[in-house]
Amino acid sequence: MERPIVMRGTTSLYPARPADTSVPIHEPLALRWSPRRLDASATVSPRELRALLEAARWAPSSGNEQPWRFLVIPREHPRRSELEDTLAPGNAWAKRAAVLIATLAKGTRAKNNEPNRWAEHDTGIATACLIVQAAAIGLVAHPMGGFDAGALARSFGVPDEYTPMAVVAVGRYDPALHDPKLEEREAKPRTRKPLREIAFLGSFGDPVPD
Amino acid sequence: MERPIVMRGTTSLYPARPADTSVPIHEPLALRWSPRRLDASATVSPRELRALLEAARWAPSSGNEQPWRFLVIPREHPRRSELEDTLAPGNAWAKRAAVLIATLAKGTRAKNNEPNRWAEHDTGIATACLIVQAAAIGLVAHPMGGFDAGALARSFGVPDEYTPMAVVAVGRYDPALHDPKLEEREAKPRTRKPLREIAFLGSFGDPVPD
Repeated sequence: MERPIVMRGTTSLYPARPADTSVPIHEPLALRWSPRRLDASATVSPRELRALLEAARWAPSSGNEQPWRFLVIPREHPRRSELEDTLAPGNAWAKRAAVLIATLAKGTRAKNNEPNRWAEHDTGIATACLIVQAAAIGLVAHPMGGFDAGALARSFGVPDEYTPMAVVAVGRYDPALHDPKLEEREAKPRTRKPLREIAFLGSFGDPVPD
Repeated sequence: MERPIVMRGTTSLYPARPADTSVPIHEPLALRWSPRRLDASATVSPRELRALLEAARWAPSSGNEQPWRFLVIPREHPRRSELEDTLAPGNAWAKRAAVLIATLAKGTRAKNNEPNRWAEHDTGIATACLIVQAAAIGLVAHPMGGFDAGALARSFGVPDEYTPMAVVAVGRYDPALHDPKLEEREAKPRTRKPLREIAFLGSFGDPVPD
């Protein structure tokens, strides 16, 4: 039986599957995960959506280039189905999201059109800020790589110098949604590599001490 | 005169330069910025450092590939100067950081050695989680792109399939540090593109409504 918890500053429910960390971490980071059982009728308010975009907007970037762009498609938008059609079959659950947000990385710098080697990296930073903001107000924000980037760019007039990186499903969790496959996925423990495989001290491959 | 504030859960001081947002956002995201006036003698505890790494470890990634790696070099480490030597002259201030963390993106997937097009993006996501964790406990975490990635890779034995993305200066703010150039930079307002230039509704270039 999942234990629902109330995230800070909201009445939205989010099952507790906290990250298994060796020391406590900031609550929205620990409680954030990527649910798939979204409420197909719940909405996200303009103020909530704006908070997500503002969080992304104020992210740090190389040279303050701000290479990130966000293409926002709410459920009721006339072009919503065009974005949904770009999703991989395994991401069909995301059609229930109140808002889908495609993230784009501008590959060239504004001042000289030279390649910006941090374009995708910094777009990831901004997208993480959006996701943390969502977690902090009890919204689901589930980033997906499984979509047809070319089709998305063609459908929505994305210029060549921008690379679609992710589609983020934003919405509210629906604990009453019955879907055996999704429930099975959500029942599995969340996993990550041990810290010693990703964090090194002094030289590549030498693990940080426990 | 800067107004020092106390961040949640810590006694560290951090001048308040909150993001100018149209709606409130989560406090660590609003208060985070990238100071340069670091305390050259202050330390970061093993527990604090571990919290930063755990926050990054639990970030989301495409296929849960977790392409991020972190090379941690505390101030007292015998190889510290090798990392400092890779910094661009404009980042000399970062030599005062208690800990320098180089971030690396693994460009290939573990299961098949195929390129992972989200490697740099997802490393940015994990790095953002590390930065948010730092902000939440009152630590500075200032990501830098200005360093010699090739020299860093050679010095620290980084394999070819990993791309150095950033060096993050982690430490504590020193409001008493006198450095006219750094003080001048910190006195300037923080700026970002307006939301209408980065967030679009329905089609690329159509701004989200105010």
